[in-house]
This record gives sequence, structure tokens and C-alpha cells, in this order.
Amino acid sequence: MKRILVIHGPNLNLLGKREPAVYGKTTLLQINNSLKALSRRLKVKLTIKQTNVEGEIVDLIQGARAKFDGILINPAAYTHTSVAIRDAIAASGIATIEVHLSNIYAREEFRQKSLISPVANGTVLGFGSKSYLLGLEALLDIIS
Amino acid sequence: MKRILVIHGPNLNLLGKREPAVYGKTTLLQINNSLKALSRRLKVKLTIKQTNVEGEIVDLIQGARAKFDGILINPAAYTHTSVAIRDAIAASGIATIEVHLSNIYAREEFRQKSLISPVANGTVLGFGSKSYLLGLEALLDIIS
Amino acid sequence: MKRILVIHGPNLNLLGKREPAVYGKTTLLQINNSLKALSRRLKVKLTIKQTNVEGEIVDLIQGARAKFDGILINPAAYTHTSVAIRDAIAASGIATIEVHLSNIYAREEFRQKSLISPVANGTVLGFGSKSYLLGLEALLDIIS
Amino acid sequence: MKRILVIHGPNLNLLGKREPAVYGKTTLLQINNSLKALSRRLKVKLTIKQTNVEGEIVDLIQGARAKFDGILINPAAYTHTSVAIRDAIAASGIATIEVHLSNIYAREEFRQKSLISPVANGTVLGFGSKSYLLGLEALLDIIS
Amino acid sequence: MKRILVIHGPNLNLLGKREPAVYGKTTLLQINNSLKALSRRLKVKLTIKQTNVEGEIVDLIQGARAKFDGILINPAAYTHTSVAIRDAIAASGIATIEVHLSNIYAREEFRQKSLISPVANGTVLGFGSKSYLLGLEALLDIIS
Amino acid sequence: MKRILVIHGPNLNLLGKREPAVYGKTTLLQINNSLKALSRRLKVKLTIKQTNVEGEIVDLIQGARAKFDGILINPAAYTHTSVAIRDAIAASGIATIEVHLSNIYAREEFRQKSLISPVANGTVLGFGSKSYLLGLEALLDIIS
Amino acid sequence: MKRILVIHGPNLNLLGKREPAVYGKTTLLQINNSLKALSRRLKVKLTIKQTNVEGEIVDLIQGARAKFDGILINPAAYTHTSVAIRDAIAASGIATIEVHLSNIYAREEFRQKSLISPVANGTVLGFGSKSYLLGLEALLDIIS
Amino acid sequence: MKRILVIHGPNLNLLGKREPAVYGKTTLLQINNSLKALSRRLKVKLTIKQTNVEGEIVDLIQGARAKFDGILINPAAYTHTSVAIRDAIAASGIATIEVHLSNIYAREEFRQKSLISPVANGTVLGFGSKSYLLGLEALLDIIS
Amino acid sequence: MKRILVIHGPNLNLLGKREPAVYGKTTLLQINNSLKALSRRLKVKLTIKQTNVEGEIVDLIQGARAKFDGILINPAAYTHTSVAIRDAIAASGIATIEVHLSNIYAREEFRQKSLISPVANGTVLGFGSKSYLLGLEALLDIIS
Amino acid sequence: MKRILVIHGPNLNLLGKREPAVYGKTTLLQINNSLKALSRRLKVKLTIKQTNVEGEIVDLIQGARAKFDGILINPAAYTHTSVAIRDAIAASGIATIEVHLSNIYAREEFRQKSLISPVANGTVLGFGSKSYLLGLEALLDIIS
Amino acid sequence: MKRILVIHGPNLNLLGKREPAVYGKTTLLQINNSLKALSRRLKVKLTIKQTNVEGEIVDLIQGARAKFDGILINPAAYTHTSVAIRDAIAASGIATIEVHLSNIYAREEFRQKSLISPVANGTVLGFGSKSYLLGLEALLDIIS
Amino acid sequence: MKRILVIHGPNLNLLGKREPAVYGKTTLLQINNSLKALSRRLKVKLTIKQTNVEGEIVDLIQGARAKFDGILINPAAYTHTSVAIRDAIAASGIATIEVHLSNIYAREEFRQKSLISPVANGTVLGFGSKSYLLGLEALLDIIS
Repeated sequence: MKRILVIHGPNLNLLGKREPAVYGKTTLLQINNSLKALSRRLKVKLTIKQTNVEGEIVDLIQGARAKFDGILINPAAYTHTSVAIRDAIAASGIATIEVHLSNIYAREEFRQKSLISPVANGTVLGFGSKSYLLGLEALLDIIS
Repeated sequence: MKRILVIHGPNLNLLGKREPAVYGKTTLLQINNSLKALSRRLKVKLTIKQTNVEGEIVDLIQGARAKFDGILINPAAYTHTSVAIRDAIAASGIATIEVHLSNIYAREEFRQKSLISPVANGTVLGFGSKSYLLGLEALLDIIS
Repeated sequence: MKRILVIHGPNLNLLGKREPAVYGKTTLLQINNSLKALSRRLKVKLTIKQTNVEGEIVDLIQGARAKFDGILINPAAYTHTSVAIRDAIAASGIATIEVHLSNIYAREEFRQKSLISPVANGTVLGFGSKSYLLGLEALLDIIS
Repeated sequence: MKRILVIHGPNLNLLGKREPAVYGKTTLLQINNSLKALSRRLKVKLTIKQTNVEGEIVDLIQGARAKFDGILINPAAYTHTSVAIRDAIAASGIATIEVHLSNIYAREEFRQKSLISPVANGTVLGFGSKSYLLGLEALLDIIS
Repeated sequence: MKRILVIHGPNLNLLGKREPAVYGKTTLLQINNSLKALSRRLKVKLTIKQTNVEGEIVDLIQGARAKFDGILINPAAYTHTSVAIRDAIAASGIATIEVHLSNIYAREEFRQKSLISPVANGTVLGFGSKSYLLGLEALLDIIS
Repeated sequence: MKRILVIHGPNLNLLGKREPAVYGKTTLLQINNSLKALSRRLKVKLTIKQTNVEGEIVDLIQGARAKFDGILINPAAYTHTSVAIRDAIAASGIATIEVHLSNIYAREEFRQKSLISPVANGTVLGFGSKSYLLGLEALLDIIS
Repeated sequence: MKRILVIHGPNLNLLGKREPAVYGKTTLLQINNSLKALSRRLKVKLTIKQTNVEGEIVDLIQGARAKFDGILINPAAYTHTSVAIRDAIAASGIATIEVHLSNIYAREEFRQKSLISPVANGTVLGFGSKSYLLGLEALLDIIS
Repeated sequence: MKRILVIHGPNLNLLGKREPAVYGKTTLLQINNSLKALSRRLKVKLTIKQTNVEGEIVDLIQGARAKFDGILINPAAYTHTSVAIRDAIAASGIATIEVHLSNIYAREEFRQKSLISPVANGTVLGFGSKSYLLGLEALLDIIS
Repeated sequence: MKRILVIHGPNLNLLGKREPAVYGKTTLLQINNSLKALSRRLKVKLTIKQTNVEGEIVDLIQGARAKFDGILINPAAYTHTSVAIRDAIAASGIATIEVHLSNIYAREEFRQKSLISPVANGTVLGFGSKSYLLGLEALLDIIS
Repeated sequence: MKRILVIHGPNLNLLGKREPAVYGKTTLLQINNSLKALSRRLKVKLTIKQTNVEGEIVDLIQGARAKFDGILINPAAYTHTSVAIRDAIAASGIATIEVHLSNIYAREEFRQKSLISPVANGTVLGFGSKSYLLGLEALLDIIS
Repeated sequence: MKRILVIHGPNLNLLGKREPAVYGKTTLLQINNSLKALSRRLKVKLTIKQTNVEGEIVDLIQGARAKFDGILINPAAYTHTSVAIRDAIAASGIATIEVHLSNIYAREEFRQKSLISPVANGTVLGFGSKSYLLGLEALLDIIS
Repeated sequence: MKRILVIHGPNLNLLGKREPAVYGKTTLLQINNSLKALSRRLKVKLTIKQTNVEGEIVDLIQGARAKFDGILINPAAYTHTSVAIRDAIAASGIATIEVHLSNIYAREEFRQKSLISPVANGTVLGFGSKSYLLGLEALLDIIS
């Protein structure tokens, strides 16, 4: 049974409350429940984390080396600024999928660049909470 | 039963033969067969087109208005240069998903920009031929 | 009696349906009818073409050399990307007027540049369908 | 009877004498006479001003609020540098047409940008003195 | 006996008539005749095509895979804008020489960039119609 | 008793009428009255000027040298373009506070730069008419 | 009684010791004491935090949603790099004032950009420790 | 006897008082006296003007057409921003020399560009008040 | 006896495992052992820290003020993005040496900029683990 | 009999030894021998020089004015940096052909610019040592 | 009696022959003779050198330290590219005047930047050979 | 016994005299003596050269191929402009260390880029003359 680490980046704990025009009304709890439902169907073991601290995301990715088969990450605001998370993914040696709720390439200039994409196995973006489910499916496909 | 138009952009007819280090060994026929298999399972009606001519892609998108419920497009080389295809999608009023085999944001500078993303409902990139299948699934989810 | 070739670029056949907030509610048929009415009043002979294919616009301009006294062109999306249409106009040796429905300089960054303006005799932009009528009038003024 | 304010920006009083290769041989007096002739035909009341001082153009536009139905302006050199004139037009609430004698987009780099276009109702450029006449006609069309 | 495909890009059919100050007075017919004369001397079989449509150039290059030993291409205006032609050449697996009549690096800024050069085996530029002959000679040298 | 010169830049005389969505509904008269009320409470002597002419603002600043203890300026549109006002402030040797009604750094690109900030003692921006009152208070604090 | 959260960003705990030529000799303790004195006068309840960790600032802002009426923040070094703090403020729905001791627009290039300004209600900068007091006053004005 | 118009741009009336570290201690009166002394020696007739208003400098240059044989101008702050003064000089048809007290190319980025240099006959910069004397000598050399 | 604080930035704990083609096979333990061996020979007291959290590096540097004579830091990914660490070093008043295992100026564009170099006493880069030893030696040289 | 000067720029004397993956295995001696063989066939007189000093290349070009009918130059590293060589060619008045072994436009960013191309009669690049032979042939064609 | 070193940079030995439209018809010999005539009148001792080699110019400037009171230099092509000459002038400690025959700021983009201006005492440009004479006069003025 | 070539670039012969605020008071002779002292201790054979001519540095590097085991180079001003020296090092096949006295990344913009770093084995910068000693040590470490 495959083990997947899901990492939610900064401010995603506010989902549903935060700027619903941009991020939709679904809460993080609902996303996590959808992910768990899908994981039961796909028979994978899910561990879900959220943190606002860049370095803790680096810690999580580093810690995943021996314990997980894949990482599903929404780096949120750190997508555009974190070389450290990028390096951690490149160093992790684990299949990693990047997801975004919104279409970052249709937003402000400074969001139209992902430091994470070049080191991710693939990216799913713009489908709202559905991005996570597609990403999980794709991740399982890769590590199988 | 939903009707989906799949559009393959320029040079995708060479898949499997063209630079396999970048685009993988799967041929366009195999991708189309996978798409058809999935479409049967999802019970959607698929029409598949490939053309190398920018203006014909515009024609296809325009023609889709009355006849299709959604568009799944890999604009390939025109991703980075075609304002005309962008305008056609924006004008079409139909749900449109953008897919890419490779991770365009990890390649040459001039490929790290999509004129299509801002008008697409969502984007799936970097999963090889699997990008199409995830995209089809996402598209159906949106138009249902 | 002067002969004028009117060229409508990509997606203009969707006028009235396409993003009316940007392009207005007038259809291409209505624009063509206004142009014809004005041409009767000005006593010029009008030929009107629309195509989505960049190369066909080049063909039209090249073919105009012997047969027309002036060209009235709305290059639409190709305004910003087509060196080929620019070269065709420069090579045609015929008076050419560029028109735009919307004010392209008040829109997205990538639309704020015209490759066509430097080789056109003049430009009329931002007056909606009225841009065509002013352009036709100006064109006749030049070739008389 | 509609009242129109025509504003000629800096150095336009030198027309006919100044760089005729770029701006033509027509003098400002001749342009004004053509405008007056057309205004009689269109039955509009014209007031014509010329000044070299940016702030006086701002004064003129501000003063037009109650007294005029439309503004026809050739901002000349201030086209490329004046945020103040732009703000005045945006604040005026009166239909405003921008005209240029030459094709500014075919000249020096620093002239290929108009701060005025985004707040004007429309722009006519490159037709020499004819630009004014087309602009007046278009302006009347808008305010009628 | 080697088979060579010669592709003339957009507007080259106007050679001799189009801006002779830039492109010289030689017509495309004369260039083709020179190429044929040289091909007879070099004992290669020549097929010559001209089209204004970007996608048709892509078609031609794709179609060359089994039928030709080398391609001699003047992409003209598409040199600076076509990722599709670039991808087609990279995918073709056939030796390809890029030629230009004029020195594109001594002209307008937007012409001082070739998307084709990085995927061509070599480039000859600035020698007028002689560029083609040098290119053909070089091509034969490579495929022999 | 300290003497303060308040300078309102171009178009601020239109406040309340001009784009209220951006600048609020308060008129310049109301701002001046608030400033006067505060000046009475703070026991400073206020002189208030408004002009649309860049050079007159330079004149005002130059003239302030002997007659005022501090300057409170909203350079408005000239914030982004006037080296002359910047030089006048640098040369004046008088404490100068820059204020803006709106948050200029959240607006158009060309407004996201202040030539004045580097030579001002401090800047208050984004609080609507309250910016002036905070600025006056700060100015008094500095010159006391 | 209004509750205000004051957040001091990285290195502000060194105030008075750190580069006094740039930041002045006032210590953070002295600033906090001034703020407390003013808060007593204005009858607001102040909570003051300082941290060097970007993610902890995000945590503080998120935590403020139910417990505070306004935020007074000096993001210090994170002003120029933190999309995460920007997103947290935008998501918080609480009035937020940005303050800076120095004039960031008169310093190094990389400091002349604030990611925070566009989401703050207003900004006060360049007045040394007085910036905080003006900011607190402005904040109270907004939330009253 | 040659007639020369000397134009001092904005803030030059403050010379000697304004930032002596940059501009030296010489006053404008002293510069004018040196110029007059030299003019007597060179037997030219000098008219000297100073204004802070851009448009008035344009007026002065336009008015010089019939009345002067040459212009000696220090455009000061307008050097870097005024297209209007540039156009006036180009239109004037009179020999024009540009002078600067300081070395503008060794100062702030925004001062390292002169819109005036391309239309001046020559430029003298960096010699303090001596720049004017060298410029006058050079001007006389040109118009003789 | 001099006291030196060694700070290893994010992901350096993965050394030897992480992309050995770029960073070599030496582990962080081996580097620390080499540093300790050298410190014994040089008779300095070494304290070694590693953390992935930007703010904790700021904390470490701030805490070093009274307790250490010098800092040897490899800021790793934060080299390119952290204004906070830069400010902490500038504020620390302690001699600080920056080291890098790889040649950051021969890698990706975004790594070819160090925010740390301008505030470090010196930099050693590109020598693999030897960079640390050279840096320690240089640091001792400076603080002696 | 035509006299041709061949100039090999810096580091070309290392050909065959230097980075053969980029420059091929042919030595400069072999290239010179091929050139001599061709020159005998074409009946031209060849003089061949190699130097690493920019100024000596300028000397060679200047000295060619009276003594040679054409120049064949591979400016190597100076292609991208030498205004002096460019000026010498422009001043020489002799037909000059630029050649490159590799395709400079497919290499590092800083090599994708030639200061020489705009002043050369033509350019041949990317054919390895064959570039020289094609260049010599083209040169003879021009000067005949 | 003051000793002045005059340095002519690359290609200036071709003056009169080289592009007379840009540089005039005066030869270097004539300029040198004018300089000598003026030097006799001003009673300074002149040494004149010309070289095409950047490093030799550096040698000349270095050698001037003990032997000359001032340097008059036209760095020609090296103006825009030579950090070495700039450093030599900054290191020389001798008054140095930069002169140019043409107006470099009215020419190609790459010539519109002087690396030398920021370290020169002053610059004279655009007066043809007269630039040297004005420069010599100014230099004497400075060192007296 | 290892043989090392030390190359000092332009203006380094002026060390101690040249801008001591930037480069320190140590003379080149003192640096060479320190290097020799260290070389005796490390038992390596040192050859030391200084030249101001770019091409001679290329000559020295080329000549080192057979005769030296390593190069220690301070390219000084040529660091930022010389593709030729970069190519020579890349071609030399000998271990090469780049050193700088000052921290080039904390100086003018144009010095914040090294063309040499990407082809050097490592770089030591900012330690004054100590940079050379550390560099020599590192070089010996690499070639042993």
C-alpha cells in the first residue's frame, strides 16, 4: 500500500474564508475529506500536513525520504519565492506533484512564475479543489 | 451524453518519433486510443483532430460552439505565440482544458510562457500522455 | 471607381457573440453592411474577406497588388505577432489602413504593440465598428 | 448645437515650418480652417486652443467640464510623458478623441507609447492633418 | 542521388518586386533557376516549394522525413516567430540549412532573433540570392 | 508659531468629482477645512496652494525657503515624472512631507514609482484625506 | 475598546544597536513604550509581538481574525520578499497598516518594492519611530 | 554681431545655495557675469533667461527663430523628461549647445539619459560653471 | 581562544545524498569533522548549527553578537532570497564569511545573485567542502 | 589575381585541442590547408593571420585597406564584445565576410549577439571548418 | 609649463577616411596640428599618442602619473566597453578630460553609454575636431 | 613539485597606490612576496606575470598548457568583459582559480558579473591580498 504525504502551504488553512472569489468556498477540511475518500478508493495511505513556515515544509519534504512513496504539494505563496523548497524536492528523490487551486498564470505578474514546477514530476492547476484529486491520481499513476 | 472535442496542435502527429527524450515514446495513436478507452468508461463522445495550421485550430474552436460541451487542447508550439487561439477560446464560451506532455516551465525560456493558460479553465502539464487523461477527467467534472 | 479590399482577421466572424464587453454587440454582418452603405455613398467598389489563417491574409494582400487601389485591414490577433503580414503590406505597394474596434493600448500588455502600424498609412482605433467607416473614408482620401 | 474644444499641444504652432519631412507642410492655420469648414458642415461649435505648457492643457481640460460636449486633442510631445493630462481627461467625464499627425508607433522608441490612449474614447493617427478631421467626425458620432 | 527539399517562406514569391533596396532585384524564379543549375552540376535532385502559411511549412518539413535527404529553408518572416517550424525541424531528423537573403542582424530589433538557427545545422545570411547557393553546397557537404 | 506651506498638485482641485472610486468623495475644500481645523489645534500657520503647472510647483517650493518652516505636498501626477520638483525639494532645505490619497503602489505600473519619496522626510499614503492630517502632524513633529 | 495587534518583523529587536545611521538610536523597547503611551491616550488595547520567522508572522495575522480589530505591521525585510504575509493580510479581513522606520524607496534597489503595500489600508514610511505612532492613529481612525 | 540666447532651466536660479557638493558654490549671477564678460570679449550679444516652467522654455526656443543666431541651454531637470523641449529645438533650426554643470552620467540612473543630446549640436558637461563658457565658445565657432 | 559560529543553511543536512553531481559525495558530518580537525589545529572553538528555517538563521546570527568572534555561513537556498539574513549579518557587527560548495555563478539564473555577498567580509565558492576550510582560515585571519 | 586576408581571432590557434564537442577536431593548420587548397583552385592569393589581441586585429584590418581585396574573419570571442573591430571593418571599405565554426545563436546568451554582423557583407555560421570555405567562396563572388 | 598627454583611441588614425558622414573630413594629422597650435598659444607641452590596443591605453595612462599634469582622451570604441581604461583613469590621480568627435548619445544604442564619463573630470562631445580644442582648454583651466 | 602560474590582470601593478579605500594599501610586490613565501612553505614553483593587455592574458593561459599544473588568476577589469579570457581558460584544461581583492558583488552594477567564474574551478573574493593566499592553497589542494 503506497504512502503519500500531502503538504498544504501557507494560508491554505484559511480556505473557504479567504478571498472566495479567487480560491472558492471549499474549506481545507472538505478538501482533506475528498482526498481521504479518494485515497480509500485508490487504496493509498495518506498523511496530511499544513504549515505556514517555509522551513517546516523543507523539514517535511526531507523527512519524507524513507517514509513516503510520493508527495502531493500545494506550495501556495512559497511557489514563487522558495528556492529552499525547490532544493528540498530535488534532493528528496521522491515523486512530487505540484497542485494549485487557482490558475496562477492568470493572476498578478509575481505569481506567474513557479520555482517548483521545474523540479516537480507534473503540475495540475486551476481546477479548484479538484486539482488535488487529479494530482493524487496522477501521483499514484507515476509511483505504481 | 457529453461531447468533447480534442485538439492536438502542431507536430503532435510525430509523437513517439520526435525527440523521445523530451516527449516520450508513446505515439499519438496510442494517446488517442487511451482517450477513447477512457471516454467509453466515462461515457462521453469524443471527436479528435490534429492540425499544424494555427488558423485551422481557430476554426475548430469556433466551430465547437454549438456542437461540443468542452474542449481538451494541447496547443503545442502555438501555446507560446498564438493570440488568435487565445482569443478563439475566450470567445468560444465552452469549458476548455489545456494539457502539455512535458513540463513547459522546465524547458527553454521561450516555452516558459503560455498565452493559453489565462483563458483555460485549468491546466495539466508534465505527465506525458497521462496529462490528456487527467485533463479529460477534469473537463468532464467541470461540464457535469 | 476605386476598388478597396477589406480584410477581417481571426475571430472577427464571431463579433457580437464574442466578449461583447470588449468588442460591442455589433455583428460582422452589420459592420459589412455599414461599410457597403458607405461605399455606395463614396462610390467605391468593396470586396470583403474574413479568414482565421495568417498565411491566407498574406495571400490576400499579395493578390491585391494588381486588383485593388487600397486595403482596409483589421489584423485582430495577428496585429501583435505577425511579421509575415507586416512584410506583405510593406511589399504590396498599396495604401493600407489599419483599424481596431477596441483601444488595443488600453488592454493587456501583449496587445499594446502593433507590428502593423509602422507599415500602415494610418491607424484608427477604439471607435468600435465606427473605426472601419472612418478608416474607409481616410483610405479613399489617400488614394484619391 | 454641440460644442467641441480642440486642443493643440506643444510645438504644433510651428506646423508647416517644423520638420516637414515628418509633419507635412500644412500649417496650423490651415488645419484650423479645415476644422472650421468641417464644423460648419457638421453644425458643431468649435473652440480652438494651442499652448506649450502642460499645466495649461490640464487647465483647459478641467475648464471644459461644463462648457463643452467633447474634446479633440493632439497632445503632441506630452502624449508620451504626461500623467497629469491623462488624469485630467479621466477626471473630465467628457468624450475625448486623441489625434496625431504622424504614426507615433513608427518613430523613436520613446514616442511609441501613449499615456493618453488608455483614457481616450478613440485614437486616429498617421493621416497628417486629415487625422483631425476624422477625429472630429468620430467625436461627433460619439456625443450624438 | 541526393534529394533536397527547398522551402521558401512567406512573401518570397514577391522577390524582385518587394522592397528591392532590402532584398535585391533577383526574382524567385531566377533564384530557383540558379538552384536548379547548381543542382545539376552537383547531381542532386531538387524539389522547390513556396507557401505563406506557417502550418503548411510544418507539413512540408514533416513530409520530408522519408522522401528527402536534406532541407534548405528560408523561413523569412516566420524565422522570428515560429516555434512550430522550429519544432518540426528538430523532429524531422533531417539535415537542415537556414538561409537568408539579407543580414537579419543588421535590421529591425524584432528581426535580430532566429528561432530556427538553434535547430539548423548551419546558417548562411546576407549574401542575397547567393545565400541559397552557398547553403545548397554546404547541405550537400553535410549529407554526403 | 510654525508656518507650513501646503501644495496640492495637478487635478486635486477636482477632488470629490474625479473618479470617486479611486480618490473618494471628499472635496479639496473639505480637505483644506480639515487641515485648517487641525492647524488651529496644533497652532501652526497654514498657507494652501493648488496648481496644475509643474514649474509653478517648483516656484512655490523655491519661494518657501525664507517664508516657511515646512512643506506638505501631494505632487499627484507629477510624483511619477517630475525631476524638477524633486530637485526643488532637495534644494529647498526645508522639511518636506509627501502625501497621497490613494495607495499609488497598488495602481498602474507607471504610478508605482515616486521620484519625490527619496528626497522627502517621510511619506504617508493610502488613507484618503486622512493622509494630509497625518502628514501635517508628522511634519510638525519633525520641525519642532 | 478596540484591540490592536502590533507586529514587528525580523531584526527589529536589534533597533538602536543595528546600523543607527539608517534606523536611528531608538530601541524597540522605547518604540513599544511610546506606542503603549499613545494607546492609553487613544484608549485602545495593544498586543505587541516580534519574530524573525516569516511563517510565524503569517500565524500571527491568521490568529488575529477573531481577536483583533486592526493590525499595525512593520514587515521589515519580509516587505520585499514575502508573498505569504501578503496573502495572510489579504485573507485576514482586518484593517492593516504598514509602517517603516526608514524611507525604503530611497535605499537599495531591492528594497524599493513592497509586496505588502497593495494589500494594506495605508502606509506610513520614513519618520523613524514616529511612523508607528502615526500608523496607530490612522488605524484607529479607520476602524472607528 | 551674433545674438545668443542663454536659457537656464529649472532650479538653476538656486545655484550656489542648492547642494553645493554637487553643483558648486558659484551663483547664477556669477555665471551670468562670466558669460557676459566672455561675450564682450567674443563680441556677441547675449540675452539670458531662467524659468522653471517647461512650456516657457519651449516658448523661448520657438521665439528664438527670427531673433537669435544660436541657443546655449542648460535644460537641468527637463534634460531627462522633456520631449517638448527636444521637439522645440529640433523645430527651431538654430544651432543649439547643451551644457551641464555636473557630470550627469556619474549620477542617479534616471539622470543618465538626455533627451536633448540627440538634437543638440554638441554637449559640454561636468566642468561646473566653466561648461557654459566652453559651450558659448563652441557655439560661436559653429555659427561663424 | 576565538569562538566561531558555523551556520549551515537549508538542505545542507542532506549533503552526500542530495544531487551528488552538483554538491559532491561528502556528507555534512564529514564536513563538520574536517572543520573540527582544522579548528583544533587553528586553536579556535567551533559551534555548528544547521536549520532549514530562515528566521532561525536570523535568530542564530542575532544571538552571536556577544558570544562569538566570527560567523562562517553557507546560506544555501536563502543566499538568493533572504533580505532578513542579510539584514541580520549587517546588524550583527561580527566578521562573517560566506561559503558555497558549488559555483553559484555557473548555475541557474536565479542562483547567480547573492544577497549576502555585499554584507559579508569575503566569499569562498566552488571548492566543494574545501570552501568551508578556506573560509574558516580566512575568518580567523580577519578576526586576529 | 584577388588578394584575401584571413583573420583568425582569439583561441582559434587551439582548434582541435579546445573543447572538441563544441568546435570539432579539425586543427587550425588543417583549416588553413583547406583554405589554401581552395584558394589555389579559385586562383586567389591568401594571407593568413591569427592573434589573441583585439587591437592587433584592428591593426590588421586597417592595414588591409591598400593591400587586400577582401577580408575573411572569424572574430571568435571578440564577436560579442568588440566595438573597435566593428568600427575598423566599417572604416576599411573592403568587402568583409564573418564566419563562425559553431552556431553562436544556439549557445550561451552572451554569445547570441554579434557586433560584427551588421557591418559584414555576409555571415556563414555553424558548418565547422566548412564555414571558412563557404565564406571564401562567397567573398570571391562579391569582389569579382 | 604644464605637460598634457593626448590619447587617441582605436581607429582614430583613420580620421578623414573613415565614414566622413559621421566623423567629418578632418584627418588626425590636422587635429594634432590644431592641438599643437593651441598648445603653443596656451603655453602647454603636448605629447600625442594613438593606439588600437586597449591595454596599451591602460599602459599610457599608468605611465602618465609622474610625467604629466593632465590627460585629454578620446577613448573611441573603448568608451563603451573598457572597464580597464576606466580603472586606469580612476587610479591615475591625474585630471582627465573625455572628448568625442560625434554625439555618441545620438547614435546606436550600444554607443549611448560611456564607462569613462563617471571617472572623467568633464566631457566634451559632438563638436567634431573642435571637441579636442575645447577639451584642452578646459583641462588647462582645471589643472591651473 | 607543482608549477603554478599567477596572472595579475590590468591595473594591479598600481596596487597600494590605486584607490586604497577600495583595494587596500598592500602593493603588488608585497602580494607577490607573500605568495612566494607561501609557495616555499607549500613546496610549489611559482611564475608570476602582470599585464594590462587582454590578449596577452589569453597568450599566457594558452602557453600554460604544457608548462604549468594550475593557474591562479585575478582578471581584474577583464573579469566583467572578456569572453576571450573565459574561452582561453575553458580551452586550457588546467585547474584555474579566480581571485579578487574586493567583493565585486558589493560594487557597481557592471562589476557584479563575472564571465570567468563559470569556467573557474573556484573563486575567492573580498579578502584583500589574503584572497591570493587562500586561492593558492585551494589550487594546490585541487591539483594534488
